[in-house]
Amino acid sequence: MEAKEAAKFFKKDMVVGASGFTPAGYPKSVPLALAERGEKGEDLGLTIITGASVGDELDGALSRAGVLKRRYPYQTNKNSRNGINDGSIQYADMHLSHVPQWVKSGFFGNIDIALVEAVAIREDGGIIPSTSIGNSNVFVEKADKVIVEINTSQPLSLEGVHDIYSPENPPNRKPIPLTKTNERIGTDYIPCDPDKIVAIVISDIKDKTRPVAPIDDISKQMAKHLIKFLEKEVEKERLPENLLPLQSGVGSVANAVLGGLVDSNFENLTIYSEVIQDSALDLLDSGKVTFASGTSLTVSPERLDDFYENFDKYKDRVLLRPQEISNNPEVIRRLGIIAMNTAIEVDIYGNVNSTNIMGSKMMNGIGGSGDFTRNAYLSIFTTQSIAKNGDVSSIVPMVSHHDHTEHDVHVIVTEQGVADLRGLSPKERAIEIIDNCAHPEYKEQLLEYLNGSYEICASKHTPHSIDKSLSWHKKFLDSGTMKK
Amino acid sequence: MEAKEAAKFFKKDMVVGASGFTPAGYPKSVPLALAERGEKGEDLGLTIITGASVGDELDGALSRAGVLKRRYPYQTNKNSRNGINDGSIQYADMHLSHVPQWVKSGFFGNIDIALVEAVAIREDGGIIPSTSIGNSNVFVEKADKVIVEINTSQPLSLEGVHDIYSPENPPNRKPIPLTKTNERIGTDYIPCDPDKIVAIVISDIKDKTRPVAPIDDISKQMAKHLIKFLEKEVEKERLPENLLPLQSGVGSVANAVLGGLVDSNFENLTIYSEVIQDSALDLLDSGKVTFASGTSLTVSPERLDDFYENFDKYKDRVLLRPQEISNNPEVIRRLGIIAMNTAIEVDIYGNVNSTNIMGSKMMNGIGGSGDFTRNAYLSIFTTQSIAKNGDVSSIVPMVSHHDHTEHDVHVIVTEQGVADLRGLSPKERAIEIIDNCAHPEYKEQLLEYLNGSYEICASKHTPHSIDKSLSWHKKFLDSGTMKK
Repeated sequence: MEAKEAAKFFKKDMVVGASGFTPAGYPKSVPLALAERGEKGEDLGLTIITGASVGDELDGALSRAGVLKRRYPYQTNKNSRNGINDGSIQYADMHLSHVPQWVKSGFFGNIDIALVEAVAIREDGGIIPSTSIGNSNVFVEKADKVIVEINTSQPLSLEGVHDIYSPENPPNRKPIPLTKTNERIGTDYIPCDPDKIVAIVISDIKDKTRPVAPIDDISKQMAKHLIKFLEKEVEKERLPENLLPLQSGVGSVANAVLGGLVDSNFENLTIYSEVIQDSALDLLDSGKVTFASGTSLTVSPERLDDFYENFDKYKDRVLLRPQEISNNPEVIRRLGIIAMNTAIEVDIYGNVNSTNIMGSKMMNGIGGSGDFTRNAYLSIFTTQSIAKNGDVSSIVPMVSHHDHTEHDVHVIVTEQGVADLRGLSPKERAIEIIDNCAHPEYKEQLLEYLNGSYEICASKHTPHSIDKSLSWHKKFLDSGTMKK
Repeated sequence: MEAKEAAKFFKKDMVVGASGFTPAGYPKSVPLALAERGEKGEDLGLTIITGASVGDELDGALSRAGVLKRRYPYQTNKNSRNGINDGSIQYADMHLSHVPQWVKSGFFGNIDIALVEAVAIREDGGIIPSTSIGNSNVFVEKADKVIVEINTSQPLSLEGVHDIYSPENPPNRKPIPLTKTNERIGTDYIPCDPDKIVAIVISDIKDKTRPVAPIDDISKQMAKHLIKFLEKEVEKERLPENLLPLQSGVGSVANAVLGGLVDSNFENLTIYSEVIQDSALDLLDSGKVTFASGTSLTVSPERLDDFYENFDKYKDRVLLRPQEISNNPEVIRRLGIIAMNTAIEVDIYGNVNSTNIMGSKMMNGIGGSGDFTRNAYLSIFTTQSIAKNGDVSSIVPMVSHHDHTEHDVHVIVTEQGVADLRGLSPKERAIEIIDNCAHPEYKEQLLEYLNGSYEICASKHTPHSIDKSLSWHKKFLDSGTMKK
């Protein structure tokens, strides 16, 4: 069917579950056809639920066309971000592991249409996804209608790289039988009743993945600190020699930090993460990593063609799982993940803001960082100590938005050094963070806040000057700098 | 051995793992003997790790005697709280499910002594705990030396009520084979090498449990709202008729809200929680609840004797597990728990403060609320809409301390009503909370903040006036009221 025809299944106020996790494996042709309807003035008001972020053909085009009313659970597109921040798109920022459970429990209401990209459909209706799984299997399971975009630009050799397993709803849920990153527990296709498939659309638009910034000195410094910290943990017998499965957040900094492991002495590493990025491929290429499990393959545009052509060399060493499995607290806690995520800002007591600039402006969302951080064996956050040419300190008296609380943050790494917060009381943490992670330009100012608060605050446990704790952000908003 | 003799095993700066979870099953005689050493001027500087809070003989006496240097992961004692807030005791407030993993991984360093209360020791060294398990099994497993307090005031009929299971460390951790609240997966004693037991002390001091406040009209109102909400969820087929296993926080409000279910039409309920309190017994008595799993039996002083004498009638319907199991994210997610916890304050965007009064003064700690909330099927927070005779609104523009973020809070219940936050964007949540949960006296003031912030804030997603978001707390600290 033509995309335009398939787009006719979408009616006003429908709830749509779409494939896609990062700009990988998301539907492209049908969303573009839907955007066309919006551009012609039709008020579609769709609710779109995905795995995570998707490419411009979905979030961008639908946002620009005014077709997107509600959006869950994560996004990174400029236009959808603008819509969220100007109030025209209602967005709820969710833990990625919560989404499949909510779909299955009916918390989002009925799922009208599942719209998924695939490389093939089996005779029994089984759908072979493309470069990501995300929540596709759950949408297919629960939706009234299924629309499949067969993307001919995606290599057919992706068949076999997926492992689909869908836990039952409570009270009948069973243990997820996964004990190693490389175990297969499901089928290599998404089971689907062929009668539910109302349209098959052929598309050849490539994943619009984003370029990865070159690894700079700051990232190298962070990676160096991180490696040294991990080496010490091995020395103290708190980690095995080949560490434990690694999770890494998405984006350039996370990519660079993970990539730094190529130059480490670690061997036989494994990855249990969401997104298999460029640096994961480098680690597979170098032999440092023996296996990588994720829910999406998101390779930068520069190496995408090469990756597709030579996918066979990775095929036995990567596996894509539904995000209900990749991000599942059960599996994360069991495997004992080392979680490495990126913070926008961190406060002196160890709370982390991952989502909202200056407390209000949504960047992307929390994504899977909460799933991994809370359930990790070791939870590490990385951030550059300053931003905006030094006018912003990433270490602040109090974060302006809380995504990860003091209870969930074990270690902070900046280019300045490592703060190991385990077992420290809040005010000990403050000294550890200021000493090791803050930029020299802000150290004195931070100590001044800490000591001033200690003086005046009735409690010495987590001393705050409640009228000054967010004053650095206020100052930045008013004057463009946090500097005194 | 006399307690005094056993106390001699404790040396300066030792790390001690003690039994106890709420004032139930904690050691009493040896701590009192340690306190005596402190009172005589000895500088012991102990680090005490427990399951959760304990009674006065441990936290109280050691705090007063200046023997307590560090404390993990939770406490409710007046004297330890004072020590924490005056800065003399270093306290890290931890998720209760993290503690056993940290002990096993060596994150607390070496555990010098495990000090556990028991009702008996088997010939093979196996320890039969008393009214709680908490982390006792893990301390016994990892400590150099084990000291057992046999408490003769605890009924021997407790034998058989425990189910001890200890997961391996990663990378060898296996699925926890628990799929129903009433399943047994382990032994009814704590395995222990008899050579590790360096002292056995006999004690007859009873658990100093705390009285439960009578159920007042406010609590009844909250319970009524909660029951109505749950009934609607069943109607919408988002919950089975007998709901899903219930978790309830500790304390009078939580006790009252759970107790309200006695008057509901629900049948065949189950409890999978930490603490089996009075209300759980009422629910068992009434037949509403068929089985209760926890890690401690904490019955109010008024009914403790009766409970002990008639324990047989409960014995087949209650089970105590280590907190590594009761609070494990794997099990909580699998069973699909309905988590009901108490908030100190909630903000208009759905963030919850459970620990720090006015942002700085530690009350008790986060306890297990994070373990349950994050991994629950449904996460509900209850709080009275006002405190301090109306001078404090429990609904505020921004919570002064964040324990549970917007990503983890599904439903808020006050005596005013229910706010169902699922699927709402932050500013929709604000309206839902102000409309349904705020006290009438504060509604206008909250709307003023929301609308004022919407006006001036560059982002309309989570609008804040960053210089005013904590001004209500400042006002209370300065003038004794949050009222305009």
